[in-house]
Amino acid sequence: MTDFTGLPVTAADIDAAATVLAPVAVRTPLLSSPALDAVTGARVFIKPEMLQRTGSFKFRGAFNKLSSIPQAARTGGVVAFSSGNHAQGVAAAAQLLNMQATIVMPADAPLSKRERTKGYGAEVVLYDRDREDREAIARDIATKRGATLVPPYDDPKIIAGQGTVGREIAEDLAALGIAPDFVAAPASGGGLIAGTATAVKARFPHAQLLSAEPEAFDDHARSLAAGRREPHSASGRTICDALMASIPGEITFAINQRLLSRGVTASDAEVGAAVALVFRELKLVVEPGGAVALAALLAGRIEARGKTVVIVLSGGNVDADLFAELIQA
Amino acid sequence: MTDFTGLPVTAADIDAAATVLAPVAVRTPLLSSPALDAVTGARVFIKPEMLQRTGSFKFRGAFNKLSSIPQAARTGGVVAFSSGNHAQGVAAAAQLLNMQATIVMPADAPLSKRERTKGYGAEVVLYDRDREDREAIARDIATKRGATLVPPYDDPKIIAGQGTVGREIAEDLAALGIAPDFVAAPASGGGLIAGTATAVKARFPHAQLLSAEPEAFDDHARSLAAGRREPHSASGRTICDALMASIPGEITFAINQRLLSRGVTASDAEVGAAVALVFRELKLVVEPGGAVALAALLAGRIEARGKTVVIVLSGGNVDADLFAELIQA
Repeated sequence: MTDFTGLPVTAADIDAAATVLAPVAVRTPLLSSPALDAVTGARVFIKPEMLQRTGSFKFRGAFNKLSSIPQAARTGGVVAFSSGNHAQGVAAAAQLLNMQATIVMPADAPLSKRERTKGYGAEVVLYDRDREDREAIARDIATKRGATLVPPYDDPKIIAGQGTVGREIAEDLAALGIAPDFVAAPASGGGLIAGTATAVKARFPHAQLLSAEPEAFDDHARSLAAGRREPHSASGRTICDALMASIPGEITFAINQRLLSRGVTASDAEVGAAVALVFRELKLVVEPGGAVALAALLAGRIEARGKTVVIVLSGGNVDADLFAELIQA
Repeated sequence: MTDFTGLPVTAADIDAAATVLAPVAVRTPLLSSPALDAVTGARVFIKPEMLQRTGSFKFRGAFNKLSSIPQAARTGGVVAFSSGNHAQGVAAAAQLLNMQATIVMPADAPLSKRERTKGYGAEVVLYDRDREDREAIARDIATKRGATLVPPYDDPKIIAGQGTVGREIAEDLAALGIAPDFVAAPASGGGLIAGTATAVKARFPHAQLLSAEPEAFDDHARSLAAGRREPHSASGRTICDALMASIPGEITFAINQRLLSRGVTASDAEVGAAVALVFRELKLVVEPGGAVALAALLAGRIEARGKTVVIVLSGGNVDADLFAELIQA
């Protein structure tokens, strides 16, 4: 049996987050896919989080976190740093809760993510990814304005919110009478897979939970193998703009170390091919980072033949130009 | 109350089709969309039939029809004429039922639809849309091979299969305790909206059912207004390649005349903008013809403010080049 003793987020925390989210979040479906079954020889279910409010799972954690801020502290607003999806999640959650949001974003974040963040009424402050420290900028704003800093992943309320993804997966599979062999989700800071693992393993202790990352940005895969938090060794970029965190979070890794089986990876070319396949066969818009778990499955890095596999497609906020390029390749 | 007396398809026929389809069809979800609610001032639900097997609702009718062919007649196989989505539906249904399928397709059908039809193991016979009679070609093949002709819409089994779209909509809304004010779906021959109307009005007699068509290809709108089957007056093409039938079906119109409130239309430019909005906001891939009901809603042709509106997005089989062009416009 899985040992959950001492973990910072419990299945009960995720149940509570589900209650908080119920009136506002989209309960995304669990999709079967005959086309993916045929390609992989597995029974594949897709959790399409691009259908979530703001186009990614990030709304879940952000709304759960913002809802936990005491009324007296809400007038100072919130501040967050994010390459894009967390930015939109926080901005949309703040708008629903009538709070002011300031978002610190890298100047090279996809235009669609910047524009959509502004569209939710947030103030966007840009920084240079190579020269400036986004955490310092955000902390400075928080101090000056009395705003609450909303971290992207290393926070129990954020993790519990993302965990509702896993809770819905477990609930829908249980209703079908099916136990999953593998559940894989993209990982940057590790909040999504940590929350998902907590909820899924509470119901299906024998399921193997896998983090998925871009090839060189494999800090989770390395850390899980090493048994301690290790940074990745990538120096360049990846088309998975949402998955560029340099090292697993402390809180998320405490969970992931206990609940995950291992980490898998996929190259940018494999991710691009997965985005195109999702367009052609699933008729969904997935952003590169959101497709990395599927890319790893399609590349044969999950021993899926004859097994039941759940793949989280974590978001769909991709610029039209890049998407057009990937589907026409 | 709605008078269903004498109609060629009943809610019970659709219940029976749902039982036939249950083991093989995807039960597509009913999606809420905060983004569309904000744009329209309505409460909008989307029925995303691009998530159906073969990428459109057409699989439902095809599988229901093929399942009704007596065992003795199955060895002759089936033949169908179709611009693309019915082709794939019939081909995939035949493959599942171990029957031979021959599909007569226009030479200018989107490449993706032709390739995918072949991918389901069907033989594709091309014809010239302007010079040849596809029905005659199909009938000739049927006679020579002893194959069963599978009509695209004017058949009670086909209509009952498509009606499972409406049955699922009604079931999901009932579970939410919500009654729809409007339900709109694209119409070419009229099978989808006829089946959908039958199922929805059986459960929600006050719902207004609407057919949606490309601006000049408005044979349903004209026919519903005139009270008799009228052809459209279009001479050219539309980007809605799936919606070019020249006149409503006889059986479908017998139903639609009784159950539909009216027909709405949208221009190609409005349809293109709807495809792009579905990409940006809903993260779904919809083909132009599949987006025409949404385009009509967005163009203000449904008095939706403050109302509950269900929009069927009927398919997502669009070539990458055209899709890229529409989302980058």
